[in-house]
Amino acid sequence: MSKSGNFYVYGRNSVVEVVTNKAKTINKIFVKNSIPPNSYSDLITIAKENLIPLVTVPEKKLEKIVGRVKHQGFVAQITSLEYLDFYSWIEEINLASYPGVLLLDGIEDPHNFGAILRTAAAAGMAAVIVPSQHQAPLNATVFKTSAGTAGRIPVIRVQNSTQGFKDLKLAGFKVYALSSDSKKAIWELQVNEPTAFVIGNEGRGISNKLMKMIDSSLMLPMENNVESLNASVTAALVCYEWKKKITYK
Amino acid sequence: MSKSGNFYVYGRNSVVEVVTNKAKTINKIFVKNSIPPNSYSDLITIAKENLIPLVTVPEKKLEKIVGRVKHQGFVAQITSLEYLDFYSWIEEINLASYPGVLLLDGIEDPHNFGAILRTAAAAGMAAVIVPSQHQAPLNATVFKTSAGTAGRIPVIRVQNSTQGFKDLKLAGFKVYALSSDSKKAIWELQVNEPTAFVIGNEGRGISNKLMKMIDSSLMLPMENNVESLNASVTAALVCYEWKKKITYK
Repeated sequence: MSKSGNFYVYGRNSVVEVVTNKAKTINKIFVKNSIPPNSYSDLITIAKENLIPLVTVPEKKLEKIVGRVKHQGFVAQITSLEYLDFYSWIEEINLASYPGVLLLDGIEDPHNFGAILRTAAAAGMAAVIVPSQHQAPLNATVFKTSAGTAGRIPVIRVQNSTQGFKDLKLAGFKVYALSSDSKKAIWELQVNEPTAFVIGNEGRGISNKLMKMIDSSLMLPMENNVESLNASVTAALVCYEWKKKITYK
Repeated sequence: MSKSGNFYVYGRNSVVEVVTNKAKTINKIFVKNSIPPNSYSDLITIAKENLIPLVTVPEKKLEKIVGRVKHQGFVAQITSLEYLDFYSWIEEINLASYPGVLLLDGIEDPHNFGAILRTAAAAGMAAVIVPSQHQAPLNATVFKTSAGTAGRIPVIRVQNSTQGFKDLKLAGFKVYALSSDSKKAIWELQVNEPTAFVIGNEGRGISNKLMKMIDSSLMLPMENNVESLNASVTAALVCYEWKKKITYK
């Protein structure tokens, strides 16, 4: 996905979307030179407005940049994905809409992190909060395993997960731990306020220190003596339970 | 997980469980020699009843076999995981309990396949049906990525997914395709009969040939221009929607 620390977004709709919403993060747009410019005049207009260079190149060049993927002739080069800080984010967010947030207690596998960012974006979560230690960084592997969707929702980095928890509580969030020790099935979730869900580390789960601070928890009922689920699966089930509840409110 | 084509199940509860339920698939049980035998007399009894050799070995030997995992001093060696055939399975299954089934239309990534088997077992699905082509085999990598849970529910191999579909229909299953073209959100699922869900291939989705045969479909609502979810995430959301509906029936 990246040879030089750059990220690439490809596919016509994805490029238009990222240029429209995240213009500042874009270095350059590449378009296949056999595509008639009047068929993408919308993109030309937005690129000009945002002072983003748009370069037409042969198909071979595009393939060299992103590999054999369904780029449809459109590729945007992005400098980097950036973390947001909690206070900038909380200033902007509409708490009255009962936003949903994931607080990751250290997801170390970049594939899990990428899958979680993809599902959280799909479910319409307002942010994913990550600690600065024991956490996969927001890099090209994560971008790739998120199928290019990392960056569609804010990723907030906090010093550690207990700090993230405290910040969320102060801002009025109800915070649930996903824990097999809970007696409350995830299906009983009610969304009547801003809501956050803590997803444990792949190996150790949620740290004891953080677990002691949390007063509400949910569990996923399991059969066949299965003791836990993959972290990205747990996150997906939580995100979509939240989405369902917010949809049918 | 395997150096010689063997699989290993580890952890006291997991070993007892596999010896109790799948005795025929076990070659040997290894127990750490510093554990007093009267503390695992239950396991000794079941092993004897099933003519399974139980060998006590030093901790180092166990670590050589399974690596640095939480084996708790108990390891069972399993010859292989076996596919069931559809007709043997359908003969045994209680259709009146409205079993839930996944029909995979070719999941090629062993990590996805392992994660799907783990979640399907946790959700209490009655089987996972796989085609014989374009499908990751049931091997040691899959066993490992399923966190040792592959084999807890039947994996049925059919010639191809359209044959699997026809067999399910004849047996009285309602079969849903998971498809972003559907207008019906997954949350509207009702479980009033045996139910199967078709999960598409990671790249091409559900094949056209199979899609044309299916009369019901469900979709996962998605925000932020995310167009699809990881196959193992889609499968997890379907399995747990089914589990919820069957739980609250």
